[in-house]
Amino acid sequence: MKRAIYREFGNPVKVLEVVEEDSPALSEGQARIAVLRSPINPSDYIQIAGEYGVRPPLPATAGNEGLGRVTEVNGQGIAVGQLVLLPPGAGCWVSETTADIRQLVPLPEGDLDQLSMLMVNPATAHLLLTEYVDLKEGDWIIQSAANSGVGHYVVQLAKARGINVACVVRRDSAAPELLAAGATEVFVDGPDLAREVRKRTGAKMKLALDAVAGETFGRLAETLEDGGTLVNYGAMSMQNAQIAAGPLIFRDIRVRGFWLVHWFGRASRAERMGVYADLTRAVATGALHVPIDRHFALEDVREAVAYTMKGGRAGKVLIAPHGVGSGMASRRRRR
Amino acid sequence: MKRAIYREFGNPVKVLEVVEEDSPALSEGQARIAVLRSPINPSDYIQIAGEYGVRPPLPATAGNEGLGRVTEVNGQGIAVGQLVLLPPGAGCWVSETTADIRQLVPLPEGDLDQLSMLMVNPATAHLLLTEYVDLKEGDWIIQSAANSGVGHYVVQLAKARGINVACVVRRDSAAPELLAAGATEVFVDGPDLAREVRKRTGAKMKLALDAVAGETFGRLAETLEDGGTLVNYGAMSMQNAQIAAGPLIFRDIRVRGFWLVHWFGRASRAERMGVYADLTRAVATGALHVPIDRHFALEDVREAVAYTMKGGRAGKVLIAPHGVGSGMASRRRRR
Repeated sequence: MKRAIYREFGNPVKVLEVVEEDSPALSEGQARIAVLRSPINPSDYIQIAGEYGVRPPLPATAGNEGLGRVTEVNGQGIAVGQLVLLPPGAGCWVSETTADIRQLVPLPEGDLDQLSMLMVNPATAHLLLTEYVDLKEGDWIIQSAANSGVGHYVVQLAKARGINVACVVRRDSAAPELLAAGATEVFVDGPDLAREVRKRTGAKMKLALDAVAGETFGRLAETLEDGGTLVNYGAMSMQNAQIAAGPLIFRDIRVRGFWLVHWFGRASRAERMGVYADLTRAVATGALHVPIDRHFALEDVREAVAYTMKGGRAGKVLIAPHGVGSGMASRRRRR
Repeated sequence: MKRAIYREFGNPVKVLEVVEEDSPALSEGQARIAVLRSPINPSDYIQIAGEYGVRPPLPATAGNEGLGRVTEVNGQGIAVGQLVLLPPGAGCWVSETTADIRQLVPLPEGDLDQLSMLMVNPATAHLLLTEYVDLKEGDWIIQSAANSGVGHYVVQLAKARGINVACVVRRDSAAPELLAAGATEVFVDGPDLAREVRKRTGAKMKLALDAVAGETFGRLAETLEDGGTLVNYGAMSMQNAQIAAGPLIFRDIRVRGFWLVHWFGRASRAERMGVYADLTRAVATGALHVPIDRHFALEDVREAVAYTMKGGRAGKVLIAPHGVGSGMASRRRRR
């Protein structure tokens, strides 16, 4: 089997290497999975750079989400040939891996690219929209970093539920794509954000989602209704989150943070299956869709990451360890 | 009747004036109360300066808490002669006032000075310790601005419940008084706060109470256990609260704000009575006690505020509109 590892934290293009090793034997309760697709997410290369909130022990296997097919089973609960999502942070840039059967999320056959990206960003977007505030059709929410991967999924999932989304971006040029995806209004971040939001929406926000931190964090708080909730799930500004005491004290604004790994740890298997079943259906109906730029072989992982980090892509970049043409014994082949 | 009012926001020593006017007639459901004591709190002069989170319409009556005796009743639920706390923000620097009977908190006879200060600071301390986290004997909490009025009450109430309090102050000189009052450990605020707290307590904090904001806010978050709660109730630094996204996301730190007025609005009359009954007992047993510096007549309110704002006092300053010697028909006279 092949595995993309890093022995030290640093620039992924330099520290990543692909090694060959023997497949390990399966322990009781484990399954072996051939990895078919694994997307390259910003969190992957932030983690390899050692700049993520948690650092894995070294050497570490790269890649935090992926889709595969079960090739061998030692235990109950899953069958050979089943398409599965790997658990988050499993080290997915590999040709095959082993995992605890209970941690696998079985999926129906479908679009391998879209399904391979369900574990992290769509689940994050789904949970941001469901775990904190009881949102109803016609309610307003606001989000920063709206043209990120999670941001686009938030727009798509909110639109499917009739929830209005005020999207905050850094540049006006991001607006047309977000409006086409279903954003209700798009705002360029700045000191007048709250006033602009009030003027153009006439509404108070029930929920604010922030992945920027810095001053944006406090600006989102200003747009919230009294008792509203501000959930942070990232710090793209690389600055501390800032908020005036006033909204906390006089308007009872509540602040929380979201990390998928915590949810995955505390959710029951039934809850996890429920969330991913919902998301799989949303992929099948086309409600959830992300443009794909291109695929790379596992051997070309350094080139793949360099290409992804460079930016200016037309969509997502994925690793396809067994080639793009192979769904490995699936009944539906693509491309 | 006499009333301390301000017609514009500004330096209290300049804008406060004492006016004489006729007593208004009582509406149905109201009582008239002779005000016996009203403490001078920082929030009083911050409000007169127009720098509080909410601004009253002008002209406004000064003074946010006080103790009085019912002198006339138009309705059910309270008797003439009853000692009562006035509702928060009632405009207490007056010789007498009228209030909705349901908003009055009846108290047993006792130490008029100590009882007159129960409405705001002790209730705030009590609610900070009870509304957010279920604290048990032996648990640790941390608080900034520990040598403030609320901070001292937090220490006294926590001590009575066997809860350990890590107190954060700006100067080492505040430590002896806090330790004598029952603080478990005292720390001087600074970048190494979290490391020092861990070193000297060996504990993770379950609850952090902050009235400073700025960087202190984020430092308190660092000391919390995973899933711990940080409650802000003031911004003495006059800066925005700052917190790294990491503790929110990876350690599930929850941020809330506390304002007594919100609690007073949502609590039932029975809940309010319960809280003040607990606090009255704590005064009676001596668990709650604040040193008194001196009293002023209502006519000398400007001098009283100037004296209080100057600092360097040996305790609390109170307005006594009917003189220190008069409890007005109470059975227990003091001094």
